Amino acid sequence: MSKYAMFGKLTSHPGKREELAKMMLEADTLNDMEGCIYYILHEAEEDPDVLWITELWESQEVHAASLKNENVRELIGRCRHLIADVGGVKVRPIGGKGF
Amino acid sequence: MSKYAMFGKLTSHPGKREELAKMMLEADTLNDMEGCIYYILHEAEEDPDVLWITELWESQEVHAASLKNENVRELIGRCRHLIADVGGVKVRPIGGKGF
Repeated sequence: MSKYAMFGKLTSHPGKREELAKMMLEADTLNDMEGCIYYILHEAEEDPDVLWITELWESQEVHAASLKNENVRELIGRCRHLIADVGGVKVRPIGGKGF
Repeated sequence: MSKYAMFGKLTSHPGKREELAKMMLEADTLNDMEGCIYYILHEAEEDPDVLWITELWESQEVHAASLKNENVRELIGRCRHLIADVGGVKVRPIGGKGF
């Protein structure tokens, strides 16, 4: 199976980025996601409301399954009121260190 | 020391993305970079000439040092004629799985 990657862009409501990041990082949910190689949050330096997330998964299937996980759904639901927009870049991971 | 991340965007000359990626991945250079936690190449799905690179380093200092490494400089020099543009997104990594 091919590995699966995403670059997600979360735009918080104005001034809410820190609260959103804290809520996402405090939960054990991110560390417990099965088949997830990494899921790392970054603050955009040039936009105070943007978080970029890089994700690498063992396959597209395990990523899709994660979205049905009860803890992941609960976390998404809890964060939703802080999020103004969801976007990203569609990518296919092809190799490198840590792949 | 704080970890250091980059999202790099390499645009190849038209039709040269595959050759560029192959050249970068074939060298052992990427795997040998000291202080590099990951350095992963991705093809943009929606632009046939774009590679996105996600990098995570132990610190900004080790990343800066890598650019002085002889093998890294040799690889950059060898790839340069295939690259039309270099860009990216400035980010600060803050946490998550694999951080």
